[in-house]
Amino acid sequence: MEKITGLRCISCGQTYDPYELDYTCPECGARRGTLEVLYDYETIGKTFRSEVESADETDVRKYSPLLPTENNDLLPPLRIGGTPLYPYHDVSDEIAELWVKDDGGNPTASYKDRATAFAIAEARRQGLKTMTCASTGNAASSLAGLAASAGVETVIFVPKSAPEAKIAQLLVYGANVFTVDGSYDQAYDLTTEVAKEYGWYNRSAAMNPYLVEGKKTGALEMADQLNWNPPDKVFVSVGDGSIISGLCKGFKELKRIGVTGHQPKIIGVQAEGADTIAKSFNTFDGTEVKIEDQEAHTIADSISVGKPRDIVKAVKYVYDNGGSYVTVTDDQISEAQVELGRRRGIFAEPAAASAFAGFLKLLRDGDFDPDDRIGVFITGSGLKDIESVKNSVPEAVEVPPELSDVQQVLKDKGLVSTS
Amino acid sequence: MEKITGLRCISCGQTYDPYELDYTCPECGARRGTLEVLYDYETIGKTFRSEVESADETDVRKYSPLLPTENNDLLPPLRIGGTPLYPYHDVSDEIAELWVKDDGGNPTASYKDRATAFAIAEARRQGLKTMTCASTGNAASSLAGLAASAGVETVIFVPKSAPEAKIAQLLVYGANVFTVDGSYDQAYDLTTEVAKEYGWYNRSAAMNPYLVEGKKTGALEMADQLNWNPPDKVFVSVGDGSIISGLCKGFKELKRIGVTGHQPKIIGVQAEGADTIAKSFNTFDGTEVKIEDQEAHTIADSISVGKPRDIVKAVKYVYDNGGSYVTVTDDQISEAQVELGRRRGIFAEPAAASAFAGFLKLLRDGDFDPDDRIGVFITGSGLKDIESVKNSVPEAVEVPPELSDVQQVLKDKGLVSTS
Repeated sequence: MEKITGLRCISCGQTYDPYELDYTCPECGARRGTLEVLYDYETIGKTFRSEVESADETDVRKYSPLLPTENNDLLPPLRIGGTPLYPYHDVSDEIAELWVKDDGGNPTASYKDRATAFAIAEARRQGLKTMTCASTGNAASSLAGLAASAGVETVIFVPKSAPEAKIAQLLVYGANVFTVDGSYDQAYDLTTEVAKEYGWYNRSAAMNPYLVEGKKTGALEMADQLNWNPPDKVFVSVGDGSIISGLCKGFKELKRIGVTGHQPKIIGVQAEGADTIAKSFNTFDGTEVKIEDQEAHTIADSISVGKPRDIVKAVKYVYDNGGSYVTVTDDQISEAQVELGRRRGIFAEPAAASAFAGFLKLLRDGDFDPDDRIGVFITGSGLKDIESVKNSVPEAVEVPPELSDVQQVLKDKGLVSTS
Repeated sequence: MEKITGLRCISCGQTYDPYELDYTCPECGARRGTLEVLYDYETIGKTFRSEVESADETDVRKYSPLLPTENNDLLPPLRIGGTPLYPYHDVSDEIAELWVKDDGGNPTASYKDRATAFAIAEARRQGLKTMTCASTGNAASSLAGLAASAGVETVIFVPKSAPEAKIAQLLVYGANVFTVDGSYDQAYDLTTEVAKEYGWYNRSAAMNPYLVEGKKTGALEMADQLNWNPPDKVFVSVGDGSIISGLCKGFKELKRIGVTGHQPKIIGVQAEGADTIAKSFNTFDGTEVKIEDQEAHTIADSISVGKPRDIVKAVKYVYDNGGSYVTVTDDQISEAQVELGRRRGIFAEPAAASAFAGFLKLLRDGDFDPDDRIGVFITGSGLKDIESVKNSVPEAVEVPPELSDVQQVLKDKGLVSTS
């Protein structure tokens, strides 16, 4: 394809022809050898803005000149992205603007649909009829749902411990689901072997460069919605590190092709109990990314990742971007989740609320300038994990079905005047 | 407001001044005396289409000339409607076109947000700061979520038997939730008393004429998305009867103002175990609507309604429209839910899948013409009720974490060639 000029290894910098490799750099291996898709930026820049502004599409298809898919018909026939960006400027006087982008309305209710769409397009381009991944969470439901809409078969490996309800969702989408008697990491490695053995397309995060291309569409869309004047700082939660890599790349490319005048500083938010990337970033000196995996513990299941697969990009890209990482406690995540629900009517899953928790933490710390324009990505719907919120909300109050009894309760609760 | 000319009782036909009454006709009572909002259709028709086509908005705000709200700023600041309409023409050769409108991507993941938005606008117009409703389902979560975004306090009464997870969702939105030691009907009556006692705005379905106005936006939007050439037949599931009433009214008004050339026949789908309206419709002769409430039993909880509150409109409007009612079994609902998931990547809640089940039933019965263009509304996301699908999908298969073992299982399942 003419617009793509090559695939470059994030670690050794070796450049490969487009489509020469499917996944990772053979020299640097699966973990360090993730690839980045390079484009003919000069040519694309000449027409990008006018092409986007005259597009009929309202979802990620709008941005195809800067995306890997040659033919939008290869994308699944559902609306991917095109999600609302809400102004919440009234949140504080200490900043100028706050924009919250709610991706919970995607077809399978998470940001992951943006990435899956482009993985499916690439599988279809190659003529592959089966896709696979290891996951119990948003990636699996996204693959199962979008593949179903595109007539692509899916084989999904989940650890045996996965919650029954999450498995049920995959089965509704018609996925072939196998519970692996082992850990998530064993399921991940098994998936890699199975994909190789049968030539199935592997949607597992990080190792597939086209997923990051899909994940960058959130950046393109946010910039477009703000008339190509993106925020100064953008918060996003970080698990494997692919979404943050996509956002860094998207905002960088927009500036490179001359459509925007600046890149936002990207601020990755991790849970304190799953902060492998934040720790690695904080010791990074621009040379080699140090990787010290951990056992992850956090209520935010979608970012409860101890062995992040896209750590090299997630550290290097944020370093290059001038951004930073911040960690939040589970309590801060729950508080942010309740705040988004109670004040904004947005029911975010804990991992998604983490990005907002990171913003609130820096706000409390007085880290912003009064003219700062802030963006926050809400990457998934809370409907996926209703159980987790039970402990962070007050209990309902039982009443008899009589007005007189209820009146007293309402007075006691201060909901009506006691006079 | 000039564009609204009056409120008319659906039973006695008495017309009241706009805003003379808040809820129902005093002559005919709460059940039979539901009101319809009348507009100055002649004036609206002159500019409606050009106003819609030049609107900047992408959600229900586009259609404000034919909606009761004078000022769109009174609506909650979330994106309501603007949901995708998908072409599924490949479903059968026995029809010409099938369009499926997926409302699961609304802010609280159901069609109810369309109605709630206009109830909130009316409460705010009246300067009321508190809203109430009785429900455990989509109406309650819709009110809690959208009111939160608009800074309106909510007091919600649910029967004590309501599932804990659904209550948790209300609490995240900051609603004051009271569990009533009694039935849903007792909770409903209690809510009516409490609303009256304290002057709180009542969002309970049917009794509030503005809810039907919000519910008609699905019709306006579907017609707009099809370039003002709506389908010939439109399927929607029916519980209380408000959504189907809204669709009938919306399509009728579009024809009346000359924007469309025809109205679709509206086909209401009820569960066999909750078919009060269908039964009443089938004995209706154009005079009085007979009401025989029942005890409801169906897996489709959002339409498990034995005492439908909007039955008079739902019967009269569909009779006037030339449409009909069809009933489906719980098995047919589950099959339709799996079909939508597996073939289309749409995870619908059982009540929403019922509309598709009704379409499939008539398709099997050979009820369509080869040039029929069909529309189906999917009114809520399956993420709201994952438990209910467990019985309608196959089980996941457990495997050891070894490639060699998995290869055998994949062969046994026919997923890979056995050669």
